[in-house]
Amino acid sequence: MSMIVQKFGGTSVGSASNIKRMASRVIEEKNRGNDVVVVVSAMGNTTDTLTRLASEVSTQPQKREMDMLLSTGEQVTIALLSMALQEKGSESISFTGGQAGIHTDSVHGNANIKTIDPKPILQELDAGKIVVVAGFQGVTDEGYISTLGRGGSDTTAAALAAQLGAERCDIYTDVDGVYTSDPRYIKKAAKISSLTYDDMLNLASRGAGVLHPRSVKHAKKHGIPMVVRSSLTRERGTFINHSSKRSDRYPVIGIVFQEERTSITLHGCGGSEVQYAIRSALTPRNIECDFFKSTQESELTLLLQHRDLQESLELISEKKEQLKFDRLTAKKDLAKVAVIGSNILTHPVIQGKAARELAASGIDFKLIEDSPVSVTAAVKQQDVHRAAELLHTAFGLDVPEMRTVVAIQ
Amino acid sequence: MSMIVQKFGGTSVGSASNIKRMASRVIEEKNRGNDVVVVVSAMGNTTDTLTRLASEVSTQPQKREMDMLLSTGEQVTIALLSMALQEKGSESISFTGGQAGIHTDSVHGNANIKTIDPKPILQELDAGKIVVVAGFQGVTDEGYISTLGRGGSDTTAAALAAQLGAERCDIYTDVDGVYTSDPRYIKKAAKISSLTYDDMLNLASRGAGVLHPRSVKHAKKHGIPMVVRSSLTRERGTFINHSSKRSDRYPVIGIVFQEERTSITLHGCGGSEVQYAIRSALTPRNIECDFFKSTQESELTLLLQHRDLQESLELISEKKEQLKFDRLTAKKDLAKVAVIGSNILTHPVIQGKAARELAASGIDFKLIEDSPVSVTAAVKQQDVHRAAELLHTAFGLDVPEMRTVVAIQ
Repeated sequence: MSMIVQKFGGTSVGSASNIKRMASRVIEEKNRGNDVVVVVSAMGNTTDTLTRLASEVSTQPQKREMDMLLSTGEQVTIALLSMALQEKGSESISFTGGQAGIHTDSVHGNANIKTIDPKPILQELDAGKIVVVAGFQGVTDEGYISTLGRGGSDTTAAALAAQLGAERCDIYTDVDGVYTSDPRYIKKAAKISSLTYDDMLNLASRGAGVLHPRSVKHAKKHGIPMVVRSSLTRERGTFINHSSKRSDRYPVIGIVFQEERTSITLHGCGGSEVQYAIRSALTPRNIECDFFKSTQESELTLLLQHRDLQESLELISEKKEQLKFDRLTAKKDLAKVAVIGSNILTHPVIQGKAARELAASGIDFKLIEDSPVSVTAAVKQQDVHRAAELLHTAFGLDVPEMRTVVAIQ
Repeated sequence: MSMIVQKFGGTSVGSASNIKRMASRVIEEKNRGNDVVVVVSAMGNTTDTLTRLASEVSTQPQKREMDMLLSTGEQVTIALLSMALQEKGSESISFTGGQAGIHTDSVHGNANIKTIDPKPILQELDAGKIVVVAGFQGVTDEGYISTLGRGGSDTTAAALAAQLGAERCDIYTDVDGVYTSDPRYIKKAAKISSLTYDDMLNLASRGAGVLHPRSVKHAKKHGIPMVVRSSLTRERGTFINHSSKRSDRYPVIGIVFQEERTSITLHGCGGSEVQYAIRSALTPRNIECDFFKSTQESELTLLLQHRDLQESLELISEKKEQLKFDRLTAKKDLAKVAVIGSNILTHPVIQGKAARELAASGIDFKLIEDSPVSVTAAVKQQDVHRAAELLHTAFGLDVPEMRTVVAIQ
């Protein structure tokens, strides 16, 4: 008997009738003779509704209390899915993150899974039950409810699959796979049939919202194949594993972008030591940042999510003595756009080509520090879709069979 | 320093703005120099919304999963209230029932509190925080979430007050106290300024919805004074304690009624042994029932909440061999109306008078087995308000100063 972890998010948990349809899909997998663990997200716009309620009572809600609030979203879904499974004659049990043995650090709002105690789930699987687990959440050492941040339900699914030694982790979502770019905005984006963990990680960590990088890391580390597929269709989806047919041949695999970025500039200082000190201040709070490429030593700019701005300004200001900057300025309404490929490092022409294309179209941009797997630029929010479309065309992703030819020319 | 437990339910937690207002009321109590523990219910119609969602995925949701679902209601309120308190500059922390150390039995949907570990709350009070606890819920020995059934938040408040040795337990609600009958339907119902635990218990256990009997039992056992008062006004409310000025003088203290009742009749059997066997079957499931007064041995009728009908029929049917009944019939759309007073036992005329009054007005009724503190009748659902109004007048409750005179005539 194999074990399959299924994760359902998006519209598949958007309504009672969708939950019933999803229950059938879970039971199909169970009826193939597999043990099934299901991880679910909050229903539809629950998270937004709860966040709005919080903003009505507080200007800056404490993160522990936000976790207490937001974690109810997944809790509602697990109860409903378990009921729907039972209604269809299956035995099932729902578990909150904590009940499922998921222990995290205490970084509320963006916690990391530390350990998973597999006993509670294995015990119920042994009893023949389908186990339904709330994604996105865990419990801290103090017994408080924590949440894993954006994409947290994928992380829960992959981490459980890894810990339980699952045969596969299926991520059911609103799209039918991983695309060369976001198909909602980039008309010619195409589905990718298979990807390596590393390619997926590169796409995800530069903003491909379909999967969270942490989830891919968990799967990669334990060699659990992942499938990203649609909950609405029977399409094959995108298969993610150690090897893939295509990555070597196509140096560029996708164009991804992330909006709602803000930059902070430190005036009067610079250099790698300052960068290191800033990262040391932000990382423990799970704030990710990128640094602009710069040749001058008297200025340093970093790019981060707008929601992290306030906290980052405070953390950096606390280090004023050490960093020796004169003043801080911030600039909002920015976005990140990135050309992604595992072998970009070995194709140095790509950075030059990306920069030329953006400049030729009159798009204002600043390049971000090199990565071996991407070329990334900060652009104005208003330009981001145009920039992505442009790069998608320039690197041959519009026309699948031409990809190699165009990309390395 | 004294400790006060406050419980907020009804419209006081109906919206974000009401929660902010409630936060101010909590802080007032804290500023008087008291330690404050706040117990809250779910917001407005959350419970109904969740119940409806459950009914969309399941015809008969498993009770464990219903508890998983419904407990999110209070969890949302505690997070929001804690945020609102912090926004106003107070230190606070929210706890689910389980986090607050509330351990229950495993009767999902209608659990009883077994023990409360006071440490988690005391530790936070010692740190100067206001502790906000989710009412209505606890955790079972298996670590599952349980709910306490109707009025469960009052029970949480009283049980915490008892365990923590609080000076007082304030129940804030939509009405400004305990009334001689339900003022929404009985125009001349009047507020009672003080009551003994026993009188309150009698009112509550026969249906006065303002407080759950379990909550009064907890308060009585530990001698914690309770105050039922409005969250919207500054009115004094109803004070509940061991002694009161009035109970001895007024044999009848109120008329209460409960709707959505259904009867089950066992044909071909009867007697106290059968009654005992039925109670033994229903009580472990926390199903309450009353027996109709009957002189014949060949028929036995019990009255219960309509929502318990299905389960009760199953439990009774399982005992068919032992009980030796021929068949079961059920009748719905019934209600219970009761004349309440601690000393009714010593005033045997009251039962006769109640029966005469109902009969004289052409109300179809059946008397229910005697209790020392009440005279109760089953009537048709459609007649219940008229019956209650009639008895309210007949026992002199319309005109406070005449109560004694009329009631014992």
